[in-house]
Amino acid sequence: MNSFGTLFRLTSFGESHGPAVGGTIDGCPSGLAIDCHLIERDLARRRLGDTPSDAITSRREPDTIEWLSGIFEGITTGTPITFIIRNSDARSAYYESLRDCCRPGHADYTYQQKYSHRDHRGGGRASGRETAVRVVAGAIAKQILSRRGVSIQAVNDGFEIHCTIQGVPAGIGQPIFNRLNASLAFAMLSIPSAMAFAMGDTPESFRHPQFPDQWNEHGQGSTLTATNHCGGIQGGISNGMPILFHVAFHPPVTRTDGMTCRRADGTLASVAHPGRHDCSHATRLPVIVEAMAAITLLDAWMQHTPNIDNN
Amino acid sequence: MNSFGTLFRLTSFGESHGPAVGGTIDGCPSGLAIDCHLIERDLARRRLGDTPSDAITSRREPDTIEWLSGIFEGITTGTPITFIIRNSDARSAYYESLRDCCRPGHADYTYQQKYSHRDHRGGGRASGRETAVRVVAGAIAKQILSRRGVSIQAVNDGFEIHCTIQGVPAGIGQPIFNRLNASLAFAMLSIPSAMAFAMGDTPESFRHPQFPDQWNEHGQGSTLTATNHCGGIQGGISNGMPILFHVAFHPPVTRTDGMTCRRADGTLASVAHPGRHDCSHATRLPVIVEAMAAITLLDAWMQHTPNIDNN
Amino acid sequence: MNSFGTLFRLTSFGESHGPAVGGTIDGCPSGLAIDCHLIERDLARRRLGDTPSDAITSRREPDTIEWLSGIFEGITTGTPITFIIRNSDARSAYYESLRDCCRPGHADYTYQQKYSHRDHRGGGRASGRETAVRVVAGAIAKQILSRRGVSIQAVNDGFEIHCTIQGVPAGIGQPIFNRLNASLAFAMLSIPSAMAFAMGDTPESFRHPQFPDQWNEHGQGSTLTATNHCGGIQGGISNGMPILFHVAFHPPVTRTDGMTCRRADGTLASVAHPGRHDCSHATRLPVIVEAMAAITLLDAWMQHTPNIDNN
Amino acid sequence: MNSFGTLFRLTSFGESHGPAVGGTIDGCPSGLAIDCHLIERDLARRRLGDTPSDAITSRREPDTIEWLSGIFEGITTGTPITFIIRNSDARSAYYESLRDCCRPGHADYTYQQKYSHRDHRGGGRASGRETAVRVVAGAIAKQILSRRGVSIQAVNDGFEIHCTIQGVPAGIGQPIFNRLNASLAFAMLSIPSAMAFAMGDTPESFRHPQFPDQWNEHGQGSTLTATNHCGGIQGGISNGMPILFHVAFHPPVTRTDGMTCRRADGTLASVAHPGRHDCSHATRLPVIVEAMAAITLLDAWMQHTPNIDNN
Repeated sequence: MNSFGTLFRLTSFGESHGPAVGGTIDGCPSGLAIDCHLIERDLARRRLGDTPSDAITSRREPDTIEWLSGIFEGITTGTPITFIIRNSDARSAYYESLRDCCRPGHADYTYQQKYSHRDHRGGGRASGRETAVRVVAGAIAKQILSRRGVSIQAVNDGFEIHCTIQGVPAGIGQPIFNRLNASLAFAMLSIPSAMAFAMGDTPESFRHPQFPDQWNEHGQGSTLTATNHCGGIQGGISNGMPILFHVAFHPPVTRTDGMTCRRADGTLASVAHPGRHDCSHATRLPVIVEAMAAITLLDAWMQHTPNIDNN
Repeated sequence: MNSFGTLFRLTSFGESHGPAVGGTIDGCPSGLAIDCHLIERDLARRRLGDTPSDAITSRREPDTIEWLSGIFEGITTGTPITFIIRNSDARSAYYESLRDCCRPGHADYTYQQKYSHRDHRGGGRASGRETAVRVVAGAIAKQILSRRGVSIQAVNDGFEIHCTIQGVPAGIGQPIFNRLNASLAFAMLSIPSAMAFAMGDTPESFRHPQFPDQWNEHGQGSTLTATNHCGGIQGGISNGMPILFHVAFHPPVTRTDGMTCRRADGTLASVAHPGRHDCSHATRLPVIVEAMAAITLLDAWMQHTPNIDNN
Repeated sequence: MNSFGTLFRLTSFGESHGPAVGGTIDGCPSGLAIDCHLIERDLARRRLGDTPSDAITSRREPDTIEWLSGIFEGITTGTPITFIIRNSDARSAYYESLRDCCRPGHADYTYQQKYSHRDHRGGGRASGRETAVRVVAGAIAKQILSRRGVSIQAVNDGFEIHCTIQGVPAGIGQPIFNRLNASLAFAMLSIPSAMAFAMGDTPESFRHPQFPDQWNEHGQGSTLTATNHCGGIQGGISNGMPILFHVAFHPPVTRTDGMTCRRADGTLASVAHPGRHDCSHATRLPVIVEAMAAITLLDAWMQHTPNIDNN
Repeated sequence: MNSFGTLFRLTSFGESHGPAVGGTIDGCPSGLAIDCHLIERDLARRRLGDTPSDAITSRREPDTIEWLSGIFEGITTGTPITFIIRNSDARSAYYESLRDCCRPGHADYTYQQKYSHRDHRGGGRASGRETAVRVVAGAIAKQILSRRGVSIQAVNDGFEIHCTIQGVPAGIGQPIFNRLNASLAFAMLSIPSAMAFAMGDTPESFRHPQFPDQWNEHGQGSTLTATNHCGGIQGGISNGMPILFHVAFHPPVTRTDGMTCRRADGTLASVAHPGRHDCSHATRLPVIVEAMAAITLLDAWMQHTPNIDNN
């Protein structure tokens, strides 16, 4: 399904070369004055990368957001917030050669097997363009979290993204299945081309987790333990230390020198690459990681059931 | 919450030193003749490890399953299957010294922060004993998957578990949020002490994913591609190749020479370890990984909405 | 929340006097050739009533549907279907007098209490206009059900709507909580101004249910029983007989001669009615009842888990 | 499925003549000192009726609750609460004649069609005995609601149950699909033999709802309006007035003089009634209505997302 979250829930829709991509946010509290500048800044980071260069994708649509519902006189009403971003640069003709041909390393083949009928243009639903929707929802979630003293920062190192969340109090997350670390893993592996996820204070956590973290005398919040090998989550629940995790992505598959595609009858065909370059892919990932982290954390927080005496 | 899955759903309950642990499976198809031998074999693997040795935990309860509902004359009825496993070896007195004291590297502190009131004996709900419930549910899911030609095999290498799922047809999983790889990551990070997850054909996938996989001419199913770097899932959906993933765990925290615990007032206290040894922890993990993989895959399969012409 | 259904799920959004109302359908099978004529016919029934007269509301927008995603070359792709209907006739100025004033018998007061901030124009989210979204989704669900031999017909009698569903096989629905009758009740009471729901073969079922239905020798499907007092559902599950239920609505509250409204400070104020007439409200209800019945039934059907031997 | 609720969620299991019926409550806040006396009182009301007489069912099991998890030293821990009630009076032999024979007006036939294989003894899962599980969960929900000043009272009049909930503040419920009245209807129609549901201040609401309710000057809470025709809910959300609704049930089907049952081949057979009398069925219904109302209301309350400034 195309929804993420339980109480703060994003439903994403739209194909790369259809009329628009967009999303509906259900469960956003009322009374929030939306800061559109922060949303646009995150969209620009997704579109241009954190370290813009000349090599980035040529699809530089302005990502103009059209708000359809849920905001009245600039303030959220508690009803579902729906927004769309029109696809203005849809050079679909480029993709006609891929109508009956599946590229390697893409979702073309699996979509064809699952749905029989698909929008083959530019990846359709599987396009990275869908992540713009998450960035908008994430930017709203960040504004709510910011009011609670939480900041989220992801940085790129090669194709590994390192993310730090500061200011989360102890007690967020569930103990068995909906552990906060499991929900973060679920969120991160839902980003196109994500391959691996690790909790912990260094990228070495992928293979060599260090344990345990010793207590600081009288420590609490961000001074609770002497080290933070566990990345701020114990038994699925935040402990008050910074939350630290890492996500590894595979490099973009599309190459300018073409590729060998698979026709429906199983035969192969060489196809010149018809699309755009996307060389600085990695620098565009941090803001997507931040967005999914923000949505995940806010939803977990809203699900937190306090002790009966705090009801 | 303590439920996992949408259509094939396990609800887990019970504490380590309470009367029992157990689970309810909702959504199991009717008409399945349960093979109890296979369930008991998996429970023995969880209790004793895949390579039993003298060093394993001394808590060797027989894990006798009491079936409470959902099975009539040995065959599932489609109504919820509930089973319990009594806790027969509850040496709770050992744990009295931990009543007001939180161990490092455990969930003691976060449970205390979240719930204020907790069952401190033997980890309570956070105990590894809860995983017996998952193993039972997983063993039932495996029997259903086996009828569809699917086999699941996990092996231990140090504290990395490598899992292979064979026989999954193309088309299982969802394209955006409930990707099959994301659901597997969610399932694996829900296992106590799991730290990292990676898709791919080698453990190097944790940090150095290789891409893309080239097509085999006329390839399909397990011969679709020349390599399987992506681990059998493209765009969140199975492609028919074997599904390959890896889970890294941190070593057990508990040590026989005691540890420094944290009192409620923030002061520290040395505590001699009151519990059991659990040295061959790693050999007990594969069957838990298999169980969660089976539940995840079966649930995703049951959610698969076929093309309108196959309805 | 603003979603309805589990596998066939409608998420509704939009306010009466915002830019648009619309919806996202998640879980519609791929490969369905959408018949737009049938959708438009149902929208006209909702707008003009089943027995159009001169007395109906003057808000006669054409309800032009803009499809944003999920349909490619006229055929569903299995990805989320999003559509919007622009609000072209938004005479919001009429409603300015209601900005700080709550009408009797409307949701003005409860929205204000729940959300503090609301779009007061024309009922905002609570407007009957939102039901257009349900009619579109229902018209798509009907097309899928029609391929399975199911027809749905609702008729108006005063403010009681009587609905008949023909062609449902035995076995749809769940036995305990998600009973098909309970799901239908949930769907019907979600329609604005619905007050009561009853299963059964006559409107007398509201207060005097007759029981039981005796078997016909060799009866099955629509000849299973001699009578159909139970309305085609036994123990929460369809029995193959026609499904019969009734929904009672209260008459429209708005009157042309004005009303006494409540200000935020608790004082009262006479307000001349600023909106439109809506006298033939009742004739517009049947298509909404049909739509919610279709969505409910299709979702229940898709959740039906067959016997293991039919997997 | 066999779960009810989102944040306060009951999962019910067990058959009438299996080892036990029981339930798991997920989401109960920690720190609640359970008052077992109140639970037992409600169980006695379910077993014996609100006005006990000599004619009631002869199955008078003591309904001894065995708590398996989630309560430590008498206080909830926030982990799932599981309880079972053993079936001590299972005279299954009486039911052997019904193994291949479906009674009229029962779920025998639909279960057989849905699941092929079923526990035919005493109704199996469809037995009224399952409602004991709801009564236990409802009694716990009532204790939480009582701390918030809410009381729930249902009374029997013929086979119509009239329920009043006092003390609910304005703002509980959702505006579109999860309306509080729709959730109550869903809950009530999930009770065996329920046929109809109506909101409103008199049983006449089933067919003749009166509208609207005029404001009281400076009215609020239980004095908000001059009348309460709407039953305390406007636009799906509580308005602070008492919540009033009605549920109609059909009389028990089982008769002492036997009945005509349906064999698998469609032929009919006269069967002497093998079970128990259950003449005062109606007096046992109020406590079940109260229980489902309490679970529904508490769950809706826990889902209430406050305004951003109250977070």
